[in-house]
Amino acid sequence: MSWILDVAQLPDLSRGATLLGTGGGGDPYIGRMMVEAAIAEYGPVTIADADEIDDDALVVSTAMMGAPTVMVEKIPKGDEAVRALRTLERHLGRQADATIPMECGGINSMIPLVVGAVTGLPVIDGDGMGRAFPELQMETFGVYGVRASPMVVAGDHDETVLIDAGTDNARVEWLARGCCIRMGGAALIAEYPMSGADAKRTAIHGTLSLGIRLGMAIREARERREHPVAALTTALSGTLYRHLRVLFEGKVVDVERRTVEGFTRGRASIAAFGGTGGAGGRATSRLEISFQNENIVAELDGAVAAIVPDLICVLEANSGEPITCETLRYGQRVTVVAISTPDMMRTPEALAVFGPACFGLDRPFTPIEELTPLPG
Amino acid sequence: MSWILDVAQLPDLSRGATLLGTGGGGDPYIGRMMVEAAIAEYGPVTIADADEIDDDALVVSTAMMGAPTVMVEKIPKGDEAVRALRTLERHLGRQADATIPMECGGINSMIPLVVGAVTGLPVIDGDGMGRAFPELQMETFGVYGVRASPMVVAGDHDETVLIDAGTDNARVEWLARGCCIRMGGAALIAEYPMSGADAKRTAIHGTLSLGIRLGMAIREARERREHPVAALTTALSGTLYRHLRVLFEGKVVDVERRTVEGFTRGRASIAAFGGTGGAGGRATSRLEISFQNENIVAELDGAVAAIVPDLICVLEANSGEPITCETLRYGQRVTVVAISTPDMMRTPEALAVFGPACFGLDRPFTPIEELTPLPG
Repeated sequence: MSWILDVAQLPDLSRGATLLGTGGGGDPYIGRMMVEAAIAEYGPVTIADADEIDDDALVVSTAMMGAPTVMVEKIPKGDEAVRALRTLERHLGRQADATIPMECGGINSMIPLVVGAVTGLPVIDGDGMGRAFPELQMETFGVYGVRASPMVVAGDHDETVLIDAGTDNARVEWLARGCCIRMGGAALIAEYPMSGADAKRTAIHGTLSLGIRLGMAIREARERREHPVAALTTALSGTLYRHLRVLFEGKVVDVERRTVEGFTRGRASIAAFGGTGGAGGRATSRLEISFQNENIVAELDGAVAAIVPDLICVLEANSGEPITCETLRYGQRVTVVAISTPDMMRTPEALAVFGPACFGLDRPFTPIEELTPLPG
Repeated sequence: MSWILDVAQLPDLSRGATLLGTGGGGDPYIGRMMVEAAIAEYGPVTIADADEIDDDALVVSTAMMGAPTVMVEKIPKGDEAVRALRTLERHLGRQADATIPMECGGINSMIPLVVGAVTGLPVIDGDGMGRAFPELQMETFGVYGVRASPMVVAGDHDETVLIDAGTDNARVEWLARGCCIRMGGAALIAEYPMSGADAKRTAIHGTLSLGIRLGMAIREARERREHPVAALTTALSGTLYRHLRVLFEGKVVDVERRTVEGFTRGRASIAAFGGTGGAGGRATSRLEISFQNENIVAELDGAVAAIVPDLICVLEANSGEPITCETLRYGQRVTVVAISTPDMMRTPEALAVFGPACFGLDRPFTPIEELTPLPG
């Protein structure tokens, strides 16, 4: 069923998508403002289930790429995403029939809505990462056979770059990242042109509406002055994201963060309140999270507590508000949770593209439900 | 008059174009081998005067871009330049009618000949720099109003990048350089798509045939065991390059060379034989040449002896063979000459694009014929 997005849903979507963005996905505030402005100027946005799209439709993913540390300071000019899409359409000799988010995340659940408002295209309720990842080849579209290119990078000086690297999606990322860096560290893209049939087959379904429900769950728990974890667990039940575990509660005591080669890289240390903070009664003292745009691995006193592609989400302890990697700072009191990724993101072919080894980690992927079994 | 290039002319063209390349323009040997192979496989190349091209023809410049230090080690796969041209043609929806060199230089006087052999297109006897320059906006095409983009960068992994930055040729350079770096430091390009009328109006005419004549002059002087300077002066008389001056004779005593940000940058010091080496009887001891891919400024004991866009050419003292910046080395005995650029490269609009300030030099352009008047 397709439905019209209500502007009043945007704060919940922004919050929920930022949770699914697992530390990355870009600044949620800027994206939300952009969607509100676009809807006010151009009209409402239709959200469509992937299954409603014709098999022979042309679906194009639209997104912002860059280091989140840059994105929070370098506001898009506004027309870049649509310009990227139009440039790709001209190259393909065909107009798109729908757009779809590349990833869940603060700004990247919003950019396709801007495109939808401006162009009138439906936005597919789903995405190509089921979370956020730092690199363009790390999309389920590509894992399951869709080419990232031809793709377009558009900058805020009206420039466009059209990249074609055939089947080599990692090379597309490499070249697009170079352009993105030279465009100032952030740019807008149109990528993975694909058929409706491929979109249905390779997307993670339902993640826009799930984002809204998760954002609502956090907000309503906050309004009831309840801990958000129980509400999130309820909201996730019956979805593709089957397991949620609380990894840690504590205070951010150190953040190391660099913007290098177009990415935000770093680590955060979280110390337990009162000296221990482990889940399941373990006497532990510190959780270390490493990130490349997104949280990649969480280690509890040196042992892996959760690892990519499972989601590692840092929530502000009182409000349940998700905290992105670029806004982590000393003194924040946080609850860290892990959420299992959908099954199609845990297959051997998926782990070959965005498993731990793809981030230089010499650790196997172990599902969060095995790393932290439920008590009893 | 158009004419068929004789493979036997290639060594002279290679030598003469390397002289005009003023230290840059890429490795002459690799380019010559590529042309010989292409002519053997595909057939002869037609060289055409710019004035023979129809005003409404589509002319596209083809070239290699990158750091010369990389070019001598990273041999092109072979099909990149034609692939770049074909990609640009598809984008424009029109086939090219001729190609033209971007610059004079070892490899970049050869790449268009490869394209001419493979495609059957005539190669225009002229170029867009009248020498070699390190950056794509530094072309007379752009100085006199032609857009560098849309342009294509093609790498040796079958990837292509199509850049469109409207009228901002410097931004095209910036983005293309980023792609070139990520393609390994050297790549092939098709750029400045223009009408035949624009090619006639904005190109430096006759530089391919001039390259052949200069290369021949050096070779014949060598065969006669004469100093090449007199032969070069004779060969240049009546051309757009009206003045030649000997700046210095001596031994290379120091070379500092780095490959940074996609360019070869550095300095060379040349000490006079027997302690003095100045022209015109001045008692001097050392010539310092600074280069960015190409020689930019020559200073005789701290005073400017020749400066961009005039040509500064280092010749092997005995053979007269031009020496490129990436092959300068300690102990070489050299003759350094300066040659005046064509008048259309000395206008205010030309100097605004490739004058000394464009290379960070806080010196005005002073013509070589003023810096070093002829004696008497």
